[in-house]
Amino acid sequence: MTAVIDRPAGTSGETPASGLVCRNCGATYPLGAQHACFECFGPLEIGYDAERLARVTREQIAAGPHSIWRYAGLLPTGQNAQTRVDSGTGMTPLIRADRLADRLGFTAPVWVKDDSANPTHSFKDRVVSVAITAARELGFSRIACASTGNLANSVAAHAARIGMDSIVFIPTDLEKAKITQTAVYGGTLVAVQGSYDDVNRLCSELAETDEFESTAFVNVNVRPYYAEGSKTLGFEVAEQLGWRLPQQIVAPMASGSLLTKVHKAFKELQSIGLVEATDYRVYGAQSSGCSPIAQAFADGTDRVVPVKPTGIAKSLNIGNPADGPYALDAVRSTGGAMAHVSDDEIRDGIQLLAQTCGVFTETAGGVTTAVLKKLVESGQLDTTRETVIYNTGDGLKTLDAVAERVGPTAVIPPTLKGMRSAGLL
Amino acid sequence: MTAVIDRPAGTSGETPASGLVCRNCGATYPLGAQHACFECFGPLEIGYDAERLARVTREQIAAGPHSIWRYAGLLPTGQNAQTRVDSGTGMTPLIRADRLADRLGFTAPVWVKDDSANPTHSFKDRVVSVAITAARELGFSRIACASTGNLANSVAAHAARIGMDSIVFIPTDLEKAKITQTAVYGGTLVAVQGSYDDVNRLCSELAETDEFESTAFVNVNVRPYYAEGSKTLGFEVAEQLGWRLPQQIVAPMASGSLLTKVHKAFKELQSIGLVEATDYRVYGAQSSGCSPIAQAFADGTDRVVPVKPTGIAKSLNIGNPADGPYALDAVRSTGGAMAHVSDDEIRDGIQLLAQTCGVFTETAGGVTTAVLKKLVESGQLDTTRETVIYNTGDGLKTLDAVAERVGPTAVIPPTLKGMRSAGLL
Repeated sequence: MTAVIDRPAGTSGETPASGLVCRNCGATYPLGAQHACFECFGPLEIGYDAERLARVTREQIAAGPHSIWRYAGLLPTGQNAQTRVDSGTGMTPLIRADRLADRLGFTAPVWVKDDSANPTHSFKDRVVSVAITAARELGFSRIACASTGNLANSVAAHAARIGMDSIVFIPTDLEKAKITQTAVYGGTLVAVQGSYDDVNRLCSELAETDEFESTAFVNVNVRPYYAEGSKTLGFEVAEQLGWRLPQQIVAPMASGSLLTKVHKAFKELQSIGLVEATDYRVYGAQSSGCSPIAQAFADGTDRVVPVKPTGIAKSLNIGNPADGPYALDAVRSTGGAMAHVSDDEIRDGIQLLAQTCGVFTETAGGVTTAVLKKLVESGQLDTTRETVIYNTGDGLKTLDAVAERVGPTAVIPPTLKGMRSAGLL
Repeated sequence: MTAVIDRPAGTSGETPASGLVCRNCGATYPLGAQHACFECFGPLEIGYDAERLARVTREQIAAGPHSIWRYAGLLPTGQNAQTRVDSGTGMTPLIRADRLADRLGFTAPVWVKDDSANPTHSFKDRVVSVAITAARELGFSRIACASTGNLANSVAAHAARIGMDSIVFIPTDLEKAKITQTAVYGGTLVAVQGSYDDVNRLCSELAETDEFESTAFVNVNVRPYYAEGSKTLGFEVAEQLGWRLPQQIVAPMASGSLLTKVHKAFKELQSIGLVEATDYRVYGAQSSGCSPIAQAFADGTDRVVPVKPTGIAKSLNIGNPADGPYALDAVRSTGGAMAHVSDDEIRDGIQLLAQTCGVFTETAGGVTTAVLKKLVESGQLDTTRETVIYNTGDGLKTLDAVAERVGPTAVIPPTLKGMRSAGLL
């Protein structure tokens, strides 16, 4: 067990989860390592006992650890502080972005929820902390994933920390930083010749084999637990704003899960009375190289047509997004919108966020920032409404995206004369 | 002003600092942008009013923000929550490293203070938050530094966040990640053809010019403020351990300032009664490519002979360390020791920390971890005494150090057959 001593024991007691529920047909199943409905093959998610959720108070949360586990009362696992895996994930800064707001003409506040502050510098530490806690509870002895990079980093790091075996699957063409940061933790790392969607399919097949019976694939057989970790991105923003919801949020979409779960978190907080039931709009961001969900939004359809991803936003390159229809529903039902941006706009977005907020984001955050700008310019996003954008990853992992664009202003010899020649003195 | 809404206002009121004190001859000066003694040219540090320090309580600190500013009552600046620069720096995880302890044969707990969790992923965010707060208070309009990389990242990011001009000086041969991460924030970045010591000398000269009168060099003319930021690395460890001191600490040494200030922090906490006056030993870590302080320790002298640095631990490559004599004193007076390690041992150290703790550190953290191991093996570090090691930076910034050593276990086609051929199924 990993202990972080500045995090006192949080909520303890039983899980508020009541079972697994099919998001398609509503069939229910007992809690366990199952991810698809036996009736209709629809995806399962965690269902909760409304009464148990309603017992959670703001005071309980505030008395919990300074990590995602302060919300254990609203999560399917991790109620026992002794057995959960607390890697120090969560409670990342919510940064007031006044200079970004000015630049884009906002009269209302803009905030950046900066998840590059997590231990392996992406929001994936949230879902992995929950998934590995569940996996250990469910008796698995090895943890695994299909990943576009950030998830690989997080799974390998969490496994190393608690001494669990890991096997991580990635496409061969990932950024070098994400490959090295996974391999350094010492687990098994399998590079697969194919796209993320190929990797994901292979993992689904492996999860059915006898040899992988004791292996928890965080985003396959324990996916219902895993996905709930993203709710903490909603809970934290509400708490950090003083227990109220923002009026607009912009989130990147790969599988569509993150955006969907933030929406779910806001709804849960409203239903149990931890925040007022104020209106909010959800906006989704994709890169033009992989925009199947944004395309379906533009086409006014529910049907997400798989694509073959291209472009520099590799962490968002999921061509066949599992939660696409649910993301469409979250955006449409709240009156939001979706947009996609080119590789050059993504680079601009990275620089805009760095230069106005001091936050160096990876390509996915460049997508989100560029989409914020684009939706403001098109009038779909309201600059008089308080807005939160989600930065989900770290610029150090996708250096090449901007390394060609930025560099030293001048190269000089170590003398005052050198400074003068360069026009700097 | 940067607001982080989850950080309530901390201590307010006047500074506990009483003036500047020469560390060499004891001469005193009023607070201000001065770093050298007019009498003897010795370095100045902040002196405090003992009574004002003694007013600080554990309860006050606990009620403060979850950042370094919870210790504002023990720092020279930042007492006013409205004007200080809070980038969310500090309160980084103290990770219980049971697997590392086991590997090295410890019977007492080992902890890793993980400062890669800071906003720009190094401990430099601490010193820069304090320095830029002081610089703005003192009326400077531009911020600058001489840097081996991490400081450059932090100065440029803090400046971007508050919209202050910045000019950052680095040696041309820095790691690409550190150059890109500085340039992306949009300030002026000057690459100097020379060593860090050359860069530092140039900055000292520039600080005396009329053109740089309004420029605060964080580690030159506002260095007394800047250096105090490192004390928070001592305060936090004490608080996170439940207000007590560890028995042994291991810290990396570049200028020697960090180690010296952690020692100063421990002494301050003891003198104002926030912790019991228990014994502790301070251990210093250098790389063999730049070990002037460790060499002086081995030679039993106070005289630190400048060297020309080599080796992969670039962030520690200061050949003429300003605080060398003070670091020697801290280590000798507490009964600690120093050691230095080769580039290969540094790489081993990076992998050891990653594989046992899930913490991916840069070369400086590899130095610290390898020195921990070396001092255990030589019997100079006691495995029955509780030990804290300081991880000061992030592996993503020095990828090349391990990129050649680690990589995918196997490369396969996306099929079960591919898995079988690789012996993974």
